[in-house]
Amino acid sequence: MTPSDIEQAARRFATFPDFLRRTPLWVLPGSAFGVRCAEVWLKLEHQQVAGSFKARGMFHRLLANPIPAAGVIVASGGNAGIATAAAARALGVRCEVFVPTVSSPAKQARLRELGADVVVTGDVYAEALEACLARQQQTGALLTHAYDQPEVVAGAGTLAMEIEDDEGVPDSVLVSVGGGGLIAGIAAWFEDRARVVALEPELAPTLFRAREAGQPVDVAVSGIAADSLGAKRIGGIAWDVTRKWVKDALLLPDAAIRDAQRWLWREMHIPVEPAAALGLAALQTGAYVPKPDEIVCLVICGANVDPASL
Amino acid sequence: MTPSDIEQAARRFATFPDFLRRTPLWVLPGSAFGVRCAEVWLKLEHQQVAGSFKARGMFHRLLANPIPAAGVIVASGGNAGIATAAAARALGVRCEVFVPTVSSPAKQARLRELGADVVVTGDVYAEALEACLARQQQTGALLTHAYDQPEVVAGAGTLAMEIEDDEGVPDSVLVSVGGGGLIAGIAAWFEDRARVVALEPELAPTLFRAREAGQPVDVAVSGIAADSLGAKRIGGIAWDVTRKWVKDALLLPDAAIRDAQRWLWREMHIPVEPAAALGLAALQTGAYVPKPDEIVCLVICGANVDPASL
Repeated sequence: MTPSDIEQAARRFATFPDFLRRTPLWVLPGSAFGVRCAEVWLKLEHQQVAGSFKARGMFHRLLANPIPAAGVIVASGGNAGIATAAAARALGVRCEVFVPTVSSPAKQARLRELGADVVVTGDVYAEALEACLARQQQTGALLTHAYDQPEVVAGAGTLAMEIEDDEGVPDSVLVSVGGGGLIAGIAAWFEDRARVVALEPELAPTLFRAREAGQPVDVAVSGIAADSLGAKRIGGIAWDVTRKWVKDALLLPDAAIRDAQRWLWREMHIPVEPAAALGLAALQTGAYVPKPDEIVCLVICGANVDPASL
Repeated sequence: MTPSDIEQAARRFATFPDFLRRTPLWVLPGSAFGVRCAEVWLKLEHQQVAGSFKARGMFHRLLANPIPAAGVIVASGGNAGIATAAAARALGVRCEVFVPTVSSPAKQARLRELGADVVVTGDVYAEALEACLARQQQTGALLTHAYDQPEVVAGAGTLAMEIEDDEGVPDSVLVSVGGGGLIAGIAAWFEDRARVVALEPELAPTLFRAREAGQPVDVAVSGIAADSLGAKRIGGIAWDVTRKWVKDALLLPDAAIRDAQRWLWREMHIPVEPAAALGLAALQTGAYVPKPDEIVCLVICGANVDPASL
């Protein structure tokens, strides 16, 4: 995964400009967050189409491959499923989404609104995935994976390219990690030009545990960000890229994540899911301490939150 | 009210840079909104400190005047009161806010969180205002007005200055009107260089009725945006400025405003109060039809919405 893969993704996006959005990069002094550093940049990716950065990766997966008559297929009731359904609708192709019976009726309704055929099957995600893979063998539909496909990582990396194009290279970029697709794209873009810091909930430490073990391992996941950062194991691409370019991996308690989520809502009227608040939590708790002259970029990666919970 | 008044406000803000935020200007193709025009720019002023553009005017009022020992005083349970309290706290001066008994406990609590002394008096706003003015006579505190003071209008105008500094002069700017402080600042900045369009709810038509009558007149106000656009009469400064520079004043039904508010939330994850959705409502209903090559700027002016209502 190299910058040229990401440039190729951006060129593909340019051939179909009416789907993805170039999201704003908001430049503020550190003092706006009560943090002693020169600037904090917020990449407002929660305003991306379908509410998260996932739209970049899923759309790129679809643009980069021939799409069979059977269309595309994915197992996900969360951001990856919503992004796949939205991308498929934009391109006018069929989309099947497999979700377990525990997925919320609201999310199933959103997927149907986006034109997807929703298959509700299995008690847990693993069973929905198994059914999805069996169905894919049968139909030959193009499978999208939430984080561990090269096109998906390269698509996510275009977010970093936009940051640089707008304001240059920040000193550090704080990124939430689930399966690692986002941090892989960002670290592959910046390489050693910015310090890319991996952030995970204590209760969903896939990258942290992999680094302890020296290889990807299965971990138990739970907590407030589990629905979007709850991959059981870091992706293979993310493992390779982060081993090369990411020096820091930090864990944050759920209470700090919730506080940062609420702060963003109350003080800045930015509605985010818990997964998008880890960067601010790291700054405001002192888990990550920038230098006084540092420019820190936070990736506000998703907005799929029930507003009533704010 | 001229551009040099607005430049003076910006210079005053620069002497105290840690309060106001330079809010993002988001550039999107018209197609992102289903509108046939070249570009739509969103000035994301709902992310301003205290949740609305009001912070600019109130802060400027405080910076431009000596502040007596009695501090500042205002009658408002809404955005103007919150903005005054936040500005007073930033400058370390006392703040008294008069609100009627009908104002919500949540808003009173927010004012107290910001350090204001909240005086709850009178059944309706007019009675709270009367008590506020009597108290001001007694204490000599500096009174802030929600829209009809020159410093308040010049402060609001800095929003237009930022738009031009970021991306240049748009062809048109669609602005919601209550008492008219915001549109006065914007029209005074752009003069005849952009087409500034006034938008009001059908149920709160202060500028529209004034234009019919040839002078400011009292109007009955109600409807979903009345809490922020519900001034009974257009301000004197706004009347003078808009008579000179604003050619178009349009009315919108509450249902269209509500639809646009919900669209902004569902499709872009932007949480706004109804008053901030009039621009999009005008575009999406066809009440305002831009030219195909037009660049339209919408001012997303406030976020003080109960998220549960979204």
